[in-house]
Amino acid sequence: MDNKKFIPPDWAFEFHGHRCPFMPIGYRMGKLALEYLGIEREKDHGFFVFPELGEGHPQTCMMDGIQIATGATYGKVLIAKTFYGKLAATFYHQKKGAVRYSLRPEFVDAMGNFEFFAYRKKGIEPSEIPAAVVDEIINWVYQQTNELMFKVEPKPDFQYTPPKGSFNRTKCSLCGEYVFERYVRMKDGKPVCIPCSGYEKK
Amino acid sequence: MDNKKFIPPDWAFEFHGHRCPFMPIGYRMGKLALEYLGIEREKDHGFFVFPELGEGHPQTCMMDGIQIATGATYGKVLIAKTFYGKLAATFYHQKKGAVRYSLRPEFVDAMGNFEFFAYRKKGIEPSEIPAAVVDEIINWVYQQTNELMFKVEPKPDFQYTPPKGSFNRTKCSLCGEYVFERYVRMKDGKPVCIPCSGYEKK
Repeated sequence: MDNKKFIPPDWAFEFHGHRCPFMPIGYRMGKLALEYLGIEREKDHGFFVFPELGEGHPQTCMMDGIQIATGATYGKVLIAKTFYGKLAATFYHQKKGAVRYSLRPEFVDAMGNFEFFAYRKKGIEPSEIPAAVVDEIINWVYQQTNELMFKVEPKPDFQYTPPKGSFNRTKCSLCGEYVFERYVRMKDGKPVCIPCSGYEKK
Repeated sequence: MDNKKFIPPDWAFEFHGHRCPFMPIGYRMGKLALEYLGIEREKDHGFFVFPELGEGHPQTCMMDGIQIATGATYGKVLIAKTFYGKLAATFYHQKKGAVRYSLRPEFVDAMGNFEFFAYRKKGIEPSEIPAAVVDEIINWVYQQTNELMFKVEPKPDFQYTPPKGSFNRTKCSLCGEYVFERYVRMKDGKPVCIPCSGYEKK
């Protein structure tokens, strides 16, 4: 089995900030999804990822691997969590359709036995865990088959339409800073930004 | 003026997917914020960025530069938009406090005159714009002073407490996939994931 193409480049670890097994798992998931949909890494704004992760739980690092592999980055507004707390993501291309990848529970269970998690559960940050302990689990992940790691589900009915963009902007009449039009609010007959408006966000 | 340290590494452009002026602007903003707060690039989970950008408007690419410079990545759940539609971000470290950087309107106006935006407003994606046009605006950005680009505001009262994390997870009794505890719902007396529950998300 040739898993070399699923090993993230060095700069991927530099971007992520530490070595852990989840960034590489997300990287592999992203690579496989591109392959499945028959597309290249996204340069601009035509491909979207909806990870089912949330907050207040571990293993979100997968999403950095997904950003790195697919080019569906947060800065390009191409990745958005669903807050379901699940180890899965749906990948959607406007012309090629959608596919969902999830981690198999058996794989998650097997991974849970590694010493890496004993450290994490004690609250020790990934960059502080001994390198040998981190490498043990990362190397094990590299050796697993795609079939053992991932459940793959085509999502033929999945649809997503990104919000229509506009370059229009207005200066807030109170703070003088620019605001993009869709976020401008009116107060005392003048355009203001949301913080100056004092209005609730929605 | 030595602006070399504000030029993103090659891998930053590879991560981002295209060359544009906004990724480098966010990179510089992030570098300056780290310097201001006296901290290093974040390896793990102790530093947070709240960009005031939203969706359906341009120039969000700044956030990729911020992720790259600071290590406050989406995958580590360290960056979260406020959806104000403003070209600004607040940087917060639990021990060092907070600072807000925003783009000065005069800088945004000056930048708007470049041919790059004529292409963007016609709907041409950054990777399709002639390299000379892209390089013109990027090089101009590199030559500007920090003072001309950014307004800097200390935010001594800014507070943020990340949600308490838990490793606990449960299998959804319907789909069999793992769900982190805070997202588990109950249906017919059994634990289920949000999609299987049929309940609305909030």
